Amino acid sequence: MPNKKIFLLSGNQLKHVHSLKQKKFREIHRQFLAEGSKLVKEILESPFRVISVYAMAEWLKSNENSLLSKNIPFLEVSEKEMARITALSSPSPVLAIAEIPEQTIPDNITGLVLALDDIRDPGNLGTIIRIADWFGIASVICSENTVDLYNPKVIQATMGSIFRVKVASVNLTEFLSSLPADTKIYGTFTRGENIYSARLDAKGIILIGNESSGISPGLTEKVTDRICIPSHAGSGSHGDHAESLNASIAAAIICSEFRRRKEGSLR
Amino acid sequence: MPNKKIFLLSGNQLKHVHSLKQKKFREIHRQFLAEGSKLVKEILESPFRVISVYAMAEWLKSNENSLLSKNIPFLEVSEKEMARITALSSPSPVLAIAEIPEQTIPDNITGLVLALDDIRDPGNLGTIIRIADWFGIASVICSENTVDLYNPKVIQATMGSIFRVKVASVNLTEFLSSLPADTKIYGTFTRGENIYSARLDAKGIILIGNESSGISPGLTEKVTDRICIPSHAGSGSHGDHAESLNASIAAAIICSEFRRRKEGSLR
Repeated sequence: MPNKKIFLLSGNQLKHVHSLKQKKFREIHRQFLAEGSKLVKEILESPFRVISVYAMAEWLKSNENSLLSKNIPFLEVSEKEMARITALSSPSPVLAIAEIPEQTIPDNITGLVLALDDIRDPGNLGTIIRIADWFGIASVICSENTVDLYNPKVIQATMGSIFRVKVASVNLTEFLSSLPADTKIYGTFTRGENIYSARLDAKGIILIGNESSGISPGLTEKVTDRICIPSHAGSGSHGDHAESLNASIAAAIICSEFRRRKEGSLR
Repeated sequence: MPNKKIFLLSGNQLKHVHSLKQKKFREIHRQFLAEGSKLVKEILESPFRVISVYAMAEWLKSNENSLLSKNIPFLEVSEKEMARITALSSPSPVLAIAEIPEQTIPDNITGLVLALDDIRDPGNLGTIIRIADWFGIASVICSENTVDLYNPKVIQATMGSIFRVKVASVNLTEFLSSLPADTKIYGTFTRGENIYSARLDAKGIILIGNESSGISPGLTEKVTDRICIPSHAGSGSHGDHAESLNASIAAAIICSEFRRRKEGSLR
């Protein structure tokens, strides 16, 4: 049997990985964490720059060559060591540190763009990015008070979609104000036009409001087209049923309806 | 200043509340926990039987009369005590213990029913019940391997919808087999008919598969109508985009499309 080199995580490495669980240090280092076989596979196939990889022996056995060919430094770690660095509730076989890319903000709205007004739940943000990816929405623009895009829980919830969809964090009021005056900005309100019959264009901004307070007052005036998802009790009514839908659920229903219209126009 | 009675949580009370965080004890006692001002308000207005309430002084000030009139025992607890009993990450002002109702299984499918095949994430299950409530789907039937309906995280995610939608946990294969032979059973598959153009009836079963493995092989044969949510790359194709949608997101898009059709037929 050949000798197997046993590497050990240094204190500095441990400290660095841990630091990336905090937004402050992600911003200082311009780095984030991606964990799990599926996510790491996807990031390795993406244009993202992977800085280093910590992996267990089993994962390395089938992926070491890929890392070597890409010249990505890696370290074999034990399950116990992985448990010390993971940001997940149960450690996965691999963790990558990657570079946060420069953000690109669309200055020309040629298709649909999702704009998120203070989405606070990492699961919702990640899920919305996954929805954008599914429906071919190329850009997701977040307000500055939206949860950090590179929060490990956001990355997990995107299931890799964050490596394909363009994401940016901006001052949303300034962004919306900078758009050409004829840009359609769709917003969901209790009293809006029924989404199933409202006119929906193939390009414009779909504005999704905060989980509990909806679209903020400062942005309400930017909305050109007020739409609503009718409940079973009818549009705008609040009877004996759920008062609202979760933000990512509303985003999904809206994106699906835009997708359906596009489909119709293709026939 | 009048003397203020200070009550203290007994060891038995603390133990009982804690026990209800586990499925085993929820089943023994036929009781579950509902926390937070919104949820407790909704359960008090529902037909559910509330067994007791633990609340902080502030909450009791405006709700004590309602509890007295309904003859519901309650105990004032300090914030510190609340922190000891809560199932949430940050304690809320009120926690109720309520009775798990007898489950009712629809034997006659007169509208739409959601059937869940091994949904494992409590957030997904709760969100799906909230979606059913929004779209007026009266029943949600869960397979026995679906996460427990009365898990505190499920209750939270329903935002009170579980007090309105009929829910049941059954052997799903037996349930589907017991239905009249002409019952429509809709299931989502990669190769299914495009949901935007497929025929969708106003009554039938919408079967939602497990988060990672989809609809289980044993239930696949029960599906009468295979549908799919087309991604931007087109129906059934798996190109350079998200491979799948989250289970609750898929449920939302499907329910919305059924709702839209119904709307169309109403005009």
